Amino acid sequence: MKGLKIAVIGGGSSYTPELIDGFIKRSKELKVNEIYLVDIEEGKEKLEIVGSLAKRMILKAGLDTKVILSLDRRSAIKNADFVLTQFRVGGLKAREKDELIPLKYNCLGQETTGAGGFAKALRTIPVIMDICKDIEELAPNAWLINFTNPAGLVTEAVLRYTKTKVIGLCNVPITMKKTTAKMLDVDENRLKMEIVGLNHLSWARKVYLDGDDITDKVIEMNLNSDELNMKNISNLGWNNIQLRSLRMIPSPYLRYYYMTDKMVMNEKRDVENGSGSRAQKVIEIEKQLFDLYKDERLDVKPIQLEQRGGAYYSDAAVSLISSIYNNKKDIHTVNIKNNGAITNLDDEVVIECDAIVDSTGARPITHGRLENEIFGLVSIVKSYEILTAEAAITGDYGKALLALSTHPLVPSIDIAESILNDILRENKEYLQQFKE
Amino acid sequence: MKGLKIAVIGGGSSYTPELIDGFIKRSKELKVNEIYLVDIEEGKEKLEIVGSLAKRMILKAGLDTKVILSLDRRSAIKNADFVLTQFRVGGLKAREKDELIPLKYNCLGQETTGAGGFAKALRTIPVIMDICKDIEELAPNAWLINFTNPAGLVTEAVLRYTKTKVIGLCNVPITMKKTTAKMLDVDENRLKMEIVGLNHLSWARKVYLDGDDITDKVIEMNLNSDELNMKNISNLGWNNIQLRSLRMIPSPYLRYYYMTDKMVMNEKRDVENGSGSRAQKVIEIEKQLFDLYKDERLDVKPIQLEQRGGAYYSDAAVSLISSIYNNKKDIHTVNIKNNGAITNLDDEVVIECDAIVDSTGARPITHGRLENEIFGLVSIVKSYEILTAEAAITGDYGKALLALSTHPLVPSIDIAESILNDILRENKEYLQQFKE
Amino acid sequence: MKGLKIAVIGGGSSYTPELIDGFIKRSKELKVNEIYLVDIEEGKEKLEIVGSLAKRMILKAGLDTKVILSLDRRSAIKNADFVLTQFRVGGLKAREKDELIPLKYNCLGQETTGAGGFAKALRTIPVIMDICKDIEELAPNAWLINFTNPAGLVTEAVLRYTKTKVIGLCNVPITMKKTTAKMLDVDENRLKMEIVGLNHLSWARKVYLDGDDITDKVIEMNLNSDELNMKNISNLGWNNIQLRSLRMIPSPYLRYYYMTDKMVMNEKRDVENGSGSRAQKVIEIEKQLFDLYKDERLDVKPIQLEQRGGAYYSDAAVSLISSIYNNKKDIHTVNIKNNGAITNLDDEVVIECDAIVDSTGARPITHGRLENEIFGLVSIVKSYEILTAEAAITGDYGKALLALSTHPLVPSIDIAESILNDILRENKEYLQQFKE
Amino acid sequence: MKGLKIAVIGGGSSYTPELIDGFIKRSKELKVNEIYLVDIEEGKEKLEIVGSLAKRMILKAGLDTKVILSLDRRSAIKNADFVLTQFRVGGLKAREKDELIPLKYNCLGQETTGAGGFAKALRTIPVIMDICKDIEELAPNAWLINFTNPAGLVTEAVLRYTKTKVIGLCNVPITMKKTTAKMLDVDENRLKMEIVGLNHLSWARKVYLDGDDITDKVIEMNLNSDELNMKNISNLGWNNIQLRSLRMIPSPYLRYYYMTDKMVMNEKRDVENGSGSRAQKVIEIEKQLFDLYKDERLDVKPIQLEQRGGAYYSDAAVSLISSIYNNKKDIHTVNIKNNGAITNLDDEVVIECDAIVDSTGARPITHGRLENEIFGLVSIVKSYEILTAEAAITGDYGKALLALSTHPLVPSIDIAESILNDILRENKEYLQQFKE
Repeated sequence: MKGLKIAVIGGGSSYTPELIDGFIKRSKELKVNEIYLVDIEEGKEKLEIVGSLAKRMILKAGLDTKVILSLDRRSAIKNADFVLTQFRVGGLKAREKDELIPLKYNCLGQETTGAGGFAKALRTIPVIMDICKDIEELAPNAWLINFTNPAGLVTEAVLRYTKTKVIGLCNVPITMKKTTAKMLDVDENRLKMEIVGLNHLSWARKVYLDGDDITDKVIEMNLNSDELNMKNISNLGWNNIQLRSLRMIPSPYLRYYYMTDKMVMNEKRDVENGSGSRAQKVIEIEKQLFDLYKDERLDVKPIQLEQRGGAYYSDAAVSLISSIYNNKKDIHTVNIKNNGAITNLDDEVVIECDAIVDSTGARPITHGRLENEIFGLVSIVKSYEILTAEAAITGDYGKALLALSTHPLVPSIDIAESILNDILRENKEYLQQFKE
Repeated sequence: MKGLKIAVIGGGSSYTPELIDGFIKRSKELKVNEIYLVDIEEGKEKLEIVGSLAKRMILKAGLDTKVILSLDRRSAIKNADFVLTQFRVGGLKAREKDELIPLKYNCLGQETTGAGGFAKALRTIPVIMDICKDIEELAPNAWLINFTNPAGLVTEAVLRYTKTKVIGLCNVPITMKKTTAKMLDVDENRLKMEIVGLNHLSWARKVYLDGDDITDKVIEMNLNSDELNMKNISNLGWNNIQLRSLRMIPSPYLRYYYMTDKMVMNEKRDVENGSGSRAQKVIEIEKQLFDLYKDERLDVKPIQLEQRGGAYYSDAAVSLISSIYNNKKDIHTVNIKNNGAITNLDDEVVIECDAIVDSTGARPITHGRLENEIFGLVSIVKSYEILTAEAAITGDYGKALLALSTHPLVPSIDIAESILNDILRENKEYLQQFKE
Repeated sequence: MKGLKIAVIGGGSSYTPELIDGFIKRSKELKVNEIYLVDIEEGKEKLEIVGSLAKRMILKAGLDTKVILSLDRRSAIKNADFVLTQFRVGGLKAREKDELIPLKYNCLGQETTGAGGFAKALRTIPVIMDICKDIEELAPNAWLINFTNPAGLVTEAVLRYTKTKVIGLCNVPITMKKTTAKMLDVDENRLKMEIVGLNHLSWARKVYLDGDDITDKVIEMNLNSDELNMKNISNLGWNNIQLRSLRMIPSPYLRYYYMTDKMVMNEKRDVENGSGSRAQKVIEIEKQLFDLYKDERLDVKPIQLEQRGGAYYSDAAVSLISSIYNNKKDIHTVNIKNNGAITNLDDEVVIECDAIVDSTGARPITHGRLENEIFGLVSIVKSYEILTAEAAITGDYGKALLALSTHPLVPSIDIAESILNDILRENKEYLQQFKE
Repeated sequence: MKGLKIAVIGGGSSYTPELIDGFIKRSKELKVNEIYLVDIEEGKEKLEIVGSLAKRMILKAGLDTKVILSLDRRSAIKNADFVLTQFRVGGLKAREKDELIPLKYNCLGQETTGAGGFAKALRTIPVIMDICKDIEELAPNAWLINFTNPAGLVTEAVLRYTKTKVIGLCNVPITMKKTTAKMLDVDENRLKMEIVGLNHLSWARKVYLDGDDITDKVIEMNLNSDELNMKNISNLGWNNIQLRSLRMIPSPYLRYYYMTDKMVMNEKRDVENGSGSRAQKVIEIEKQLFDLYKDERLDVKPIQLEQRGGAYYSDAAVSLISSIYNNKKDIHTVNIKNNGAITNLDDEVVIECDAIVDSTGARPITHGRLENEIFGLVSIVKSYEILTAEAAITGDYGKALLALSTHPLVPSIDIAESILNDILRENKEYLQQFKE
């Protein structure tokens, strides 16, 4: 059993303790020699704080895994078995802009969906391209496990423009499963949810308990409860008639599409009444988390981390790594090349769906056609993603304008132009690909 | 050369003189024995006025075609060679509601696009289904030439739910070609425009003059001119960067999608300042037209008809009939089953594109893949159309809600629900398929 | 844990002890209340012999499963959880004809491939249609596990013309895996073979050992060994250049396509020199087996059964049943609706490939495009299968002629006609669907 | 009206007078300044004979078109508007080998179909690649009109491996139409035949007379007549039941697939009884033709040329050129990129079907799905073609073996290997791409 080298890009993230916790929990099945936590100069202080906690956690767990803190990405990637990307270009300050700029134009301001996600993609994709170049040179057999958001779009760019072996990961599917199991008060393993679509644009088409179809029952539960949601999403109730006709359970993120008006109104209200944007709230939470992390007596993942909004990421990521490493042939919901899994989407686009994972990687399970009720929305968002990936790489202003205006939550070409201009001006230092 | 029997459903329409004019102009190549102008009881007066004019026109032209006015649709259809549908369920009063209801919710109120077109489809499809039943029983070899709007959606319903041989027709493609020829000051026959998409959602991907690609030139002309438009559409200028990056010429109707905010604002302003909705303007125009038509001295198509907004319909329709009748093998832009013409849409959906027309009907020419810049929008509107056709036929409220909320110009499920409820209430007599 | 009712159609088969053995081996995970062994009047004696052995085996194993021998198919199917089909219409006598008729015309005479398989399909499909009617009426939730050959074609007919839930099964994929593991001297579970294609027309495109691609190595081993074969197939060596260029491991059955001339020559030689057709050999083996089975002291599966040629069937079948019953989510190679798994075949055709099996059934894993080197052959054989299914059901002579002449091992329409006429004449009693 | 420059590669062919005749007949609509007849050193004598005749024909017709005889291909191609390829690598001597080698192994020996066509493709494709390089450098806007056989496979190679604008042409579709019109004794223009498939592997799926479906009638006529055939194909009668069930009219070349045994027997008999292979007959015919051509008094196309077997080539070619030149928008049956025309073949493969031709080139008309009765055969031959194109370009022996063994008229891998070895040995000088 060969020990692994893991490189974590964005290692100074507040999420890192969860990841370390994930490796600790699976240490019997997953021998890790080295974990490189890599960050950039600006993140050095946070890296040191969270890195020290990581070391204490490993020590406490009695493992001999080495945790190395580094600002040198290339040495971290060199000969790595897995490269995990959880970085955030521009930090939470940039996220705040992503949330506030669209709101100026009464458009959704959200980290991954709509114009905010677009801005994040423009900043992120050039960096992930550089990382892929490093991987192809220094660790060509490594798997890139990407959680950097917008995870689907970033994975689309990697698959379209590099040769890096990549799997995109998100905590939404696993959260949907865990929450549904909790609502039903059953063990998660008895439950099967057929979740399919794109990242942050997916639906559970069927839910089975021990093989029995309980989809309608779970829909009714969702109509009467607000449990199935993510920490970062306004918890508006679903439209009863819609869900009963649709006969699927939408991902919590679908609220941004189905209830756009109210979601934008809530965001605006929060900003106006001083509650702040989600980024501002997260800045506060992060501050508290890092204060906690500094405590030298802390040597386990603090429970407060779960409020942060990224629950189950580590579980999904480390479990995926273990399936590859141990040739498990089990099922994970991942972002991956379609390859026929959804028959009415192109073979080469990235989708989010169940896949079999073993030592050769992930292969999607077939899901057939998307229904007309969801196909159109998936198609237009996928078109937006492909155009955005192209704009992010070429730095072509016109292409970026077409990309943004294609997004269904951007209501006109004029508003797209205004938002794009604001994004380019406010993110100048991170968007060097767009020449003046 | 066998003489034809033509049945015109909605024969009392103000457009009829244009149609008659079309038959007169082509009388050498197209021998017509009988033209049945059919209408319903409520339209009797208009039928008699326009029918008398039609008879005078035929007389003046020296033809022996019989014009028969009738309220009996079945006798008109019996053994007909071509059935032309240009009826309007609920008349212009219903159109006015279609335009005003969505505006209440700050949504586009338009005859064919968005929630207004949705309402019109719900009213129209049950009637066209009845007509198809009559055709299949009484004239199974007849061609149904449909111009009733929303023409693409209605044709989709006919192809999906009947066995009637149908071709859908619209004056937008022919208007785009004629106007472009006029802008270029060249003969229309030297020009080739590759127009493709859905009805009222199409783009000229390429324009050729004598085989030379002049697409970019025509784009620049459109950026500097407002000639390429329809009478019924606010003539907002296109976004320069958008069009130059897109490198296609959008149909005038694309303004509703690209400049939704301004288009809605203009509509609201017109209603608020007393200019009225488009329907109100058309009611006025129609009144004037029928006053003209009453004049017993009038025996030609009056020039004022061209203001009505439906220019070139007759030209398109009679020219199409002649191509079928005369086995011409020439090209028409029609609404027709895709059958591979657009490779990234399903084979069985109705698209609008160039087709070869001969005595066996219309066969589309291949157009390859729609580009990402337009594919997503086409996909979501086509999904909306298929769902709407299903809702119109089943009368299923939930399906209707999903259909309407799928339309990209309807911003949320709640607004969809409000609009749908208004539509059902205000159109009760025409929407018997929706049970209480 | 609910106990199962299993119905075995063709229960008097010499294979039955293997099936019983499979249930015994998995008795801890698979609680079976009743096994109905069903046969027809002509098979009564064999049913009683093998049924008695089955009962002795169950007794010896200390299980309380009831084994019921029956000539009443409907009572066996009623409320069954699984219906297993392993019957042979016309018995080995009909198989002998299937083998000898084509040989008269210098064509391959083989039970499942070519004209022999065609004849078997014509006899079998009407019977399986009847069984499916019974299942839909008497046990609508039952799974039909079909091994009756030609297994792929029969499954195609069931999926195309009934609503029965069906999975087709064959011992070739499992044999390929087991034999390769044996050749490599490694545990089977460390090996992954990506086997894809149609039943008896499949290739292992990739072989992995612990995740390392060892395809080329396995190809070399196959070029130097004759281990990877089935008992019933002449063991001719592969063409070295072909296999090295193809870079896949063909199923042993591919010999019939790649070395048609030699395979036919061998068959003719065997018949001429008195060794007899394969059917004649099997008749002899069966006789010996039933003599063994009669021995009241025998209460386990006799080792001689393995010579019969159907090794691993029971393993595959019972293992599949257990995966459904226990919601295992593990991988089986099965015959199943394509649904996008092979992107260049139609979604609705039956293919043979890896699928995830759980309590909701089997869902194929995506396999992408078939390479040009194998796609054409798969396409033409699949066309043959679809046409044959249609001919078997309609009894249309012309359709049957087109079907048979489509098969790549039938060299001309005239030979197809001669063979078809012989088949119809020699199988008259089983081919009532073909009217005079 | 700009005058054209035409380059004819293989200008010394005995067909050239037909081509010149075609230009003369269309001289009013097609102004040709220069016709370059190009050949290689070995063909110089024939070039001079046929070139002199061409000049006399032009003179007689009173045209001022210049006919230039040249061995310098590049100067002929430079700035040409159309490049016509009708060359034959290795001449009729090589054709004779193509016909005789496969016969040694009881396989079809035919110029375009089976192993003979394979050998011709291997010789031809490297030369056409060189021509395309010249065109891309010296006349990038030129259209390549290819008749060099195997025309479909050569066009496939050009479309797959070059950027040259190409249309492949064959006289089979036009011959089928003309002969059918003659059999029916009607004007060709009243007839529509929907011919679709691959080059030399096509079917008329429907025949219409003035828009009425007369397919069944034409099938009966074909069953009772041998008129619909090509000069070079043994005129065996069709199988009645097959054609009536198929309900299509097969191209005469389909005899090679449907009656392989008899066709091979006829070929063998001809060779054995001294009638010689088709090549030998053509050598004799050519000798006689060139004797005729030498006659200085001859200044028109001699009627004897029609026996040569290539009737209507010139008509098809010059008519196609005229449609492009005159922006005619009429229909030609051509070899062209599928692009969705046949929905169950890949978009990028070359098919033979009806296309609209205008100054921008040829765009196929949609034909929908190929029926199962013909789809499999088309698929396997298309797979063979793609593999052969790849083998011809790479000179990879293994790929060539896989290509040849994929052809449905090559019965086993061993025979493929023997034939391939003979081909490589006998064509050494023309197959430099295959290294020792």
